[in-house]
Amino acid sequence: MPVPFTTLADFAGRLADLPAPDTGAIAAAEARNGQLTKPPGALGRLEELAIWYAGWRGDPRPSLEAPQIVVFAGNHGIAARGVSAFPADVTVQMVANFEAGGAAINQLARAYGATMGVVALELDQPTADFTAGPAMSEAEAVAALGAGWEAVDPAADLFIAGEMGIANTTAAAAIAAALCGGRGVDWAGRGTGVDAAGLELKAAVIDAGLAANAGALAGQPLEVLRCLGGREIAAIAGAIAAARSHRIPVILDGFIATSAAAVLHAAAPGALDHALAGHRSAESAHGRLLDHLGLSPLLDLDMRLGEGTGAAMALGVLRGAVACHSGMATFAEAGVSDG
Amino acid sequence: MPVPFTTLADFAGRLADLPAPDTGAIAAAEARNGQLTKPPGALGRLEELAIWYAGWRGDPRPSLEAPQIVVFAGNHGIAARGVSAFPADVTVQMVANFEAGGAAINQLARAYGATMGVVALELDQPTADFTAGPAMSEAEAVAALGAGWEAVDPAADLFIAGEMGIANTTAAAAIAAALCGGRGVDWAGRGTGVDAAGLELKAAVIDAGLAANAGALAGQPLEVLRCLGGREIAAIAGAIAAARSHRIPVILDGFIATSAAAVLHAAAPGALDHALAGHRSAESAHGRLLDHLGLSPLLDLDMRLGEGTGAAMALGVLRGAVACHSGMATFAEAGVSDG
Repeated sequence: MPVPFTTLADFAGRLADLPAPDTGAIAAAEARNGQLTKPPGALGRLEELAIWYAGWRGDPRPSLEAPQIVVFAGNHGIAARGVSAFPADVTVQMVANFEAGGAAINQLARAYGATMGVVALELDQPTADFTAGPAMSEAEAVAALGAGWEAVDPAADLFIAGEMGIANTTAAAAIAAALCGGRGVDWAGRGTGVDAAGLELKAAVIDAGLAANAGALAGQPLEVLRCLGGREIAAIAGAIAAARSHRIPVILDGFIATSAAAVLHAAAPGALDHALAGHRSAESAHGRLLDHLGLSPLLDLDMRLGEGTGAAMALGVLRGAVACHSGMATFAEAGVSDG
Repeated sequence: MPVPFTTLADFAGRLADLPAPDTGAIAAAEARNGQLTKPPGALGRLEELAIWYAGWRGDPRPSLEAPQIVVFAGNHGIAARGVSAFPADVTVQMVANFEAGGAAINQLARAYGATMGVVALELDQPTADFTAGPAMSEAEAVAALGAGWEAVDPAADLFIAGEMGIANTTAAAAIAAALCGGRGVDWAGRGTGVDAAGLELKAAVIDAGLAANAGALAGQPLEVLRCLGGREIAAIAGAIAAARSHRIPVILDGFIATSAAAVLHAAAPGALDHALAGHRSAESAHGRLLDHLGLSPLLDLDMRLGEGTGAAMALGVLRGAVACHSGMATFAEAGVSDG
């Protein structure tokens, strides 16, 4: 999709003017749900999911035929501080793995019938080390938001943003701390598997980032994204907003994708109304961030891989929910007594 | 599959001689899991699921291509006591709906690529009212176990038993009380939607059933099934055992299917090692029965429909788990540094 902003202020303006779901489709979907051959409420969360999806698609009996997954990859200056269990080279190696179809997200995209794309964001130019100042200039942040915006296919009927970026749980934790309060120790987690000393280092790096950018961070969520985020995190924020502009529902993945979503939530109340929390990650801070956003995760499978994998599992669930809603017979059609 | 038993004692004999999983395949699957391009443990429960599945299929890199869902339907004498929110006619009406493809389970079978069959068990002959004595004669119980056994396709690579039977949450609750202890009030739930008075009636009917069959129930799990169960519940028990005889993994559905599984567990420790708890139903006693069996449900989506729908949702998850395990590249194949 063409990018309709050239500054962070432009992007903030887009967030102030987001489309709402189709209330007529919601009412019609609710009415249909009440006539399907099952006791009222017996499909539990599947019913809510289908009605939510119907509202955003503007169709009381929607199909889910064209889900899109895009994995955004970026490198982080703070990786040089040793905050990850893996070397920074792994980001570009994993991009090759995504392109060759060998990663977990490739298998899940195939299993649940989604298209799968990869957007590598200037991997040879890591963001700046945020313990010394902003991770990105405004131009860099806008370019990354734009890369995310452009990546969304307007013909998709569901969107999932995955990510890859060595050190990006540290960036996500810094964003969460800046938006929700608390210090590094409150938001740092094990990531891909750091030990206790690594965890302490992560917390210290986050605290240093909050201190180094204190002036810029005050009260401006997009500045939080620019100063503490990374290119892939900004791209996810841009993609979530782009999806909304086309009323394409979004499933959020884990802690990093949710940190991008949290920036939008802080910038514009209701900016995540089209987004579902796919799962609660095993990364310890993710559940707390979801609580802060008022989002209730669909799955809890102890996953902590990123790439969009938790959201892809939830796509499997959503496919079932929509299939029931749109495919089931009504009591009248089936000649079943409705109690 | 040909039925290898003609009495309950024969069936008990089959349960005493169940095959074990392939420990070599488990070890090889664990080794493979450790080489896949992800941090150790990052796919959480998906990793356990894939290794469990590999063990039962005897293949360290298994496929999941031929899942089978069968819905068993039966009618219950106790329906005449008014324990359900729906009339008993709904059982036969819903069988027609399954056959026409209009029920929730039909949509989920399609969504997750399973075959779907229906076995209606003498719907014009409800079981006897268990408040006056055994629900089934031995011949009736054996015939129902055999119908379940026969329904399993030896070529399936996963099996799900669903059920339909007005009043069968009352039968399941009576089985749970007989096997685990407690009274009607401890195990009765809302079923398809009874009110508080209906719930009280259910509890009283269960207590009456326990009292009327007290002599037969003592210590013999298959007698619990015969005296308090129904034809569809016995068929599910037979099908779970048949699947095991072919090392076909099973996903358990909700409270009723789990009550059938609980009979096998009581009759033979380890009889459910090939079975996964697909979900925790909103039927209040289901979680408690799973705890009793030591099973941890994969999903918690507030569903309470039966038909196999909760297990089918879990099939969607298992498909993703197996796809990751068998499809992902190893670190060596992908040229990714392993930390």
